[in-house]
Amino acid sequence: MDAIYKATVTAPVNIATLKYWGKRDVALNLPTNSSISVTLSQNDLRTTTTASASLLYTEDELYLNGSKEDVSSKRIQTLFRELRALRKAEEDKQTGSLVPLSKYYLRIVSENNFPTAAGLASSAAGFAALVKAVAELYQLPQSNEELSILARQGSGSACRSLFGGYVAWEMGSKADGSDSKAVQIAPYEHWPEMKAAILVVSAERKDTPSTSGMQLTVKTSSLFKERVNSVVPQRFEQMKKSILEKDFETFAHLTMADSNQFHATCLDSYPPIFYLNDVSRAAIRLVEDINKVAGEVVAAYTFDAGPNAVIYYLAQNEQLVLGPLRAALKNLPAWKEESHSHIQELMSDDFDKRWVNTLHSGIERIILTGVGQGPQLSTNSLIDKNGNLWGSSF
Amino acid sequence: MDAIYKATVTAPVNIATLKYWGKRDVALNLPTNSSISVTLSQNDLRTTTTASASLLYTEDELYLNGSKEDVSSKRIQTLFRELRALRKAEEDKQTGSLVPLSKYYLRIVSENNFPTAAGLASSAAGFAALVKAVAELYQLPQSNEELSILARQGSGSACRSLFGGYVAWEMGSKADGSDSKAVQIAPYEHWPEMKAAILVVSAERKDTPSTSGMQLTVKTSSLFKERVNSVVPQRFEQMKKSILEKDFETFAHLTMADSNQFHATCLDSYPPIFYLNDVSRAAIRLVEDINKVAGEVVAAYTFDAGPNAVIYYLAQNEQLVLGPLRAALKNLPAWKEESHSHIQELMSDDFDKRWVNTLHSGIERIILTGVGQGPQLSTNSLIDKNGNLWGSSF
Repeated sequence: MDAIYKATVTAPVNIATLKYWGKRDVALNLPTNSSISVTLSQNDLRTTTTASASLLYTEDELYLNGSKEDVSSKRIQTLFRELRALRKAEEDKQTGSLVPLSKYYLRIVSENNFPTAAGLASSAAGFAALVKAVAELYQLPQSNEELSILARQGSGSACRSLFGGYVAWEMGSKADGSDSKAVQIAPYEHWPEMKAAILVVSAERKDTPSTSGMQLTVKTSSLFKERVNSVVPQRFEQMKKSILEKDFETFAHLTMADSNQFHATCLDSYPPIFYLNDVSRAAIRLVEDINKVAGEVVAAYTFDAGPNAVIYYLAQNEQLVLGPLRAALKNLPAWKEESHSHIQELMSDDFDKRWVNTLHSGIERIILTGVGQGPQLSTNSLIDKNGNLWGSSF
Repeated sequence: MDAIYKATVTAPVNIATLKYWGKRDVALNLPTNSSISVTLSQNDLRTTTTASASLLYTEDELYLNGSKEDVSSKRIQTLFRELRALRKAEEDKQTGSLVPLSKYYLRIVSENNFPTAAGLASSAAGFAALVKAVAELYQLPQSNEELSILARQGSGSACRSLFGGYVAWEMGSKADGSDSKAVQIAPYEHWPEMKAAILVVSAERKDTPSTSGMQLTVKTSSLFKERVNSVVPQRFEQMKKSILEKDFETFAHLTMADSNQFHATCLDSYPPIFYLNDVSRAAIRLVEDINKVAGEVVAAYTFDAGPNAVIYYLAQNEQLVLGPLRAALKNLPAWKEESHSHIQELMSDDFDKRWVNTLHSGIERIILTGVGQGPQLSTNSLIDKNGNLWGSSF
């Protein structure tokens, strides 16, 4: 019987603190500005992907959360072609000693441990896991920086999920995108105290998909150029410095201001794009109240292309930040988890009840997580020794 | 018995189509950019002000909507002092032939025919009426342009309410503000077809007062400079041209884009300022649907420092614009007024029901009006021949 060659990895979600918004090249996913993100722990949010190759397979196949996906899209085809070319180069270098996997069809199975629809940057984890799993299957010598260039072509922000900790996506300047890649600013171990609370807003159909939204902003916002040319380059250096110096206050200020400015350029687009709604606004105001009550900046909000709030804070300020959230969102199951059952509700007249009430009725889920590691090898294969998908989850 | 000298005027509300946001001099109300507005009809929204002077009076007094107001504020004192100085100059020129009104105390009574709290720019109409009423009482020779410089010092946008039709506030460049004044771009008669529907959002406490909001934006928004230095000067010329050419499509596009950009700079402020809420956003989307269904731009939204939408349209497109509004807001009394009872509800699957439902539950009042004339002399005195306030409304 022909062998099934396989490798399994897990990859993390990342949430940008300096936002990626705007492509200078749509086909290659080249951005108009550099960006920065925090990689979140795979204990809470992860994509698991098994890549396999075999002479038994009769076509390239991709399964996401149990559904067979179309692999004919340009992005998927590009990744398959480029990964095979890298494997082929190794096969040619070591003539005869390597199984010619580059000529075999691929079967790739991928699963998220969180709902795709929750707007939690699942495509970033997904494309990072896909590239990393095939690279492991092919035993490629390329570094994560080099692999990030591939992942970027699947989904821009996926390049940042190739690393743990604190990650920059350097926009690069070359037309072919060969210098537009992710680099690690600092590993998880540098500043492991960073925590994140994700407030998932009750489902609302997404206003504008992010790819078309970005292009609308690039084309129509008269303030956008100022952002990418003048504001972001400065913030990029300031934010890297704040991470290296573990200066939470500066990091928080930049994170909040940059989220606001990204959404401001969305509003300056024509027709305007809105991702923040009244619930998002209430989350912003609650964070402001939390910081006011704490007497210092202990929490920072950020919003991607949707209404969900991500609130960053340090472990030592957990009670100051989560106490008010527990009071506002006491009905949610997250507080019953052992790791957060010790949080005491914290509420006083210093908190504006309007925001508390809006959050109470508008947030359906809270995910408590923190900074984490990059992609990991896993023994948890999603494909059995015969090349079949494990039945249980499908 | 000593005589009561008096004059009564009415003054209009104006709604900016190119927004005023940001002061380069707070004391003098000098703006960071020029702005443009449409003056609305006094048949629907007006302030009536009677100014009187008499030897019988023992202090300067100001009554607004039946309440005696403090006149010691710097803004009011400046207006009284400057208006008296202009009168004094006339008295000195025509020695002995003019009653020395500049030496008499003033009693000023002012009333709005709409709720002050509705966020309908009542201060603009109020200060315009105050300046114009005293100027009439004093028989001042100053032009409306000259008087607008005074009104501006009461409330910036008040200067634009000295004129009917289409009005520009030229920011000027002098440090003393003597060239920061309103001028008429075109009178009411040039383009009388312009109509406006004001959607009053159910009461919510105002997020940030506009004066402090402006200063926060000037100080903290990194995109604001680009707006005032590069974007607005160009839009100012384009919008004037669109008015002179009665080019509604260009006028509408600029009006919507400029409202969005003003709110974008609010969001780019730190901490961010929000005036638009989910109801405002629904109004924007409904206007977009109205234009899509019409197959051309027949309606333009604009928002001041609050959630209320003002929708401009031309009389010939009344059914296309008001039909969907009537369908969405059928419970409001405005449609029973004779002038709008002929509007037919217009709704189809081309309209997104999400916005329709949000508007239905979030709008408490609709005011149907249009472009109108500038301040008018009135015989409707609010002070009787003995200097007393007319009793009925107090």
